[in-house]
Amino acid sequence: MVAHSIAAIETTEFRLPMVGELRWGSQSSLAEARHVLVTVTLSDGSSGVAEAPPRPTIYGETAATITAIVRDELAPRLLGQPATTAWARMAAIRNNHTAKGAIDIAVHAALAQSAGQSLAEQLGATRQRVRVSYILGIGARDEVLAEAERVVGQGVRVLKVKVGRDWNEDIARIHDLQAMFGDTVELYADANETMLTENAADRLATLRELGLRYCEEPLPVEQIRARARLRAQGILPIIADDSAFTLRDLHRELELDTFDILNIKTPRTGYTESLAMLALAGAAGKGGMVGSQAGSTIGTARAAIFAARPEIEHPSELSFFLKLREEITDRPLQLVDGWLEVCDALAVRIDPARLREMTVRG
Amino acid sequence: MVAHSIAAIETTEFRLPMVGELRWGSQSSLAEARHVLVTVTLSDGSSGVAEAPPRPTIYGETAATITAIVRDELAPRLLGQPATTAWARMAAIRNNHTAKGAIDIAVHAALAQSAGQSLAEQLGATRQRVRVSYILGIGARDEVLAEAERVVGQGVRVLKVKVGRDWNEDIARIHDLQAMFGDTVELYADANETMLTENAADRLATLRELGLRYCEEPLPVEQIRARARLRAQGILPIIADDSAFTLRDLHRELELDTFDILNIKTPRTGYTESLAMLALAGAAGKGGMVGSQAGSTIGTARAAIFAARPEIEHPSELSFFLKLREEITDRPLQLVDGWLEVCDALAVRIDPARLREMTVRG
Repeated sequence: MVAHSIAAIETTEFRLPMVGELRWGSQSSLAEARHVLVTVTLSDGSSGVAEAPPRPTIYGETAATITAIVRDELAPRLLGQPATTAWARMAAIRNNHTAKGAIDIAVHAALAQSAGQSLAEQLGATRQRVRVSYILGIGARDEVLAEAERVVGQGVRVLKVKVGRDWNEDIARIHDLQAMFGDTVELYADANETMLTENAADRLATLRELGLRYCEEPLPVEQIRARARLRAQGILPIIADDSAFTLRDLHRELELDTFDILNIKTPRTGYTESLAMLALAGAAGKGGMVGSQAGSTIGTARAAIFAARPEIEHPSELSFFLKLREEITDRPLQLVDGWLEVCDALAVRIDPARLREMTVRG
Repeated sequence: MVAHSIAAIETTEFRLPMVGELRWGSQSSLAEARHVLVTVTLSDGSSGVAEAPPRPTIYGETAATITAIVRDELAPRLLGQPATTAWARMAAIRNNHTAKGAIDIAVHAALAQSAGQSLAEQLGATRQRVRVSYILGIGARDEVLAEAERVVGQGVRVLKVKVGRDWNEDIARIHDLQAMFGDTVELYADANETMLTENAADRLATLRELGLRYCEEPLPVEQIRARARLRAQGILPIIADDSAFTLRDLHRELELDTFDILNIKTPRTGYTESLAMLALAGAAGKGGMVGSQAGSTIGTARAAIFAARPEIEHPSELSFFLKLREEITDRPLQLVDGWLEVCDALAVRIDPARLREMTVRG
């Protein structure tokens, strides 16, 4: 096998107008997505693209910092080096999660092209289709239910419901959704660290009685012993997200046994570290799902291919594209009865004319 | 009291040529410091400055990302807002430690000026002088010993020795230093997470027998239970640095009881969070020291004032200026028999002509 080196790394900032406004956590909202497209070219001329979604409140990145860190720190460490060593070389630079993640995924796409393989073959992603969930926004009752109706009409069959701002309202919303959809739609909860040690067990029990499947990050991540105790009670499977951003975090969390299912976000850990995390979690008997970093169709397609790994047995958050009004890809993704076809994700390409139109000039 | 609001935040990138090259960890080196000076102006015209040292391998920041995050995310959240709420408002943005830290310290300096107080009065920093340590570089034996001789000649009386690359060499170097300086110089170790669970207890015992005072981060930070067990053995006081970057990290570390002395770095947690961390650590019976982020004289002066808090009872790493050939301040700092006078730190000002000369034009 020829060891291809990295010949070029380019970044392009682009706009993605949204259908509505996205809100999450207590501090964050998003009216128009502005992402960075990363293109990696190898020494044999093959190339790959991936998407870095700037999330200042989650990872501290903006489009400007992503562009700067790629130009000033990451590209200088990678140009001329073997493509297969990219992730290890980037590990020297802290944080900048989605900048590094996008380079890693673009490298994989380029290597797959070079080898005449599909990305699915390259990743060992053998499923034909992946189960998809949708993250329901926070807002007034009518808005939330209208959004749910719209996306269920578009093929969503699993909804993730944010809880924690107002528990009684949260429960009322869950009742509303169950009244609307009955058994056709499954629900689970994301508490975004808003529960208290005094009420978390009761609240998880309530969610279980309501038939919800999981709860993501019930307690503040720094309360590591309380989280371990809560998980040991086995009330409802607990999903780790904020507590396990990286492989090093995951080692720590597994030492304390704080969760049941790992939420892997390929934009923040690339394919390389995502594969390592999936293997480590699996060896410890933990489940896996693929999370959303609110990616556009190109980012979601890349994540969907990873979600076709056989170890990913829980629904993955691969539906943010339903919130976007315009795209830079040559085709949309579609959901049918809760599933996304992996061959559709593999077929997605950038449309150069659309990309030009949406490019933000520096 | 009038609630002053923030009227302006400016950033200036400047160069700091060094005497030698600084190396740390396994990935990092530094030949010329390039830092960002942050100036905050309040609504009453008072102003303060502080220094953000870009450390891509520690915090993922560069001069370009610091400039961008201040301009695009931090300043828009702060301009027109009460100065006393600055840190809380910046908490919404993740990472970007030294960008946020510099704004917070500059806000404190501006508020002190506005109130006609010294920064020491404002911070409750009551000591007249602070005990200083120096971080000895990694390198060939002759270089390291020559550097030690030079800085001890300049008033250093505590040396922090990096260990972990080659244990036998490390021990030989400690013997060399003890032969050179006898009891006039105290030593402690920084293992930078390089020990193993199998050898850490033995190595700490060896360091204790050699008379070293502490060891910083003996084990990989993700091995949180092994770190707790090692600390419980009480062989040598353990300093927390990488394991406790933030207040949230500190809560987690105190839950598991993994360290004895907290290394607080004001450039990464500003004055506001540094004060909160010092209080929390103290309430848990932990000691405190002030660490170096390789600050120039302005950054070191700001850190030295914090180190004059009565709770800081261990030597602080306030001597990086000994490595710099040129400065942007109107006076140097000096060490006398291991001590730095706080009144000297309080007197340090930026020299506008020197700053102009060292400014990097964008």
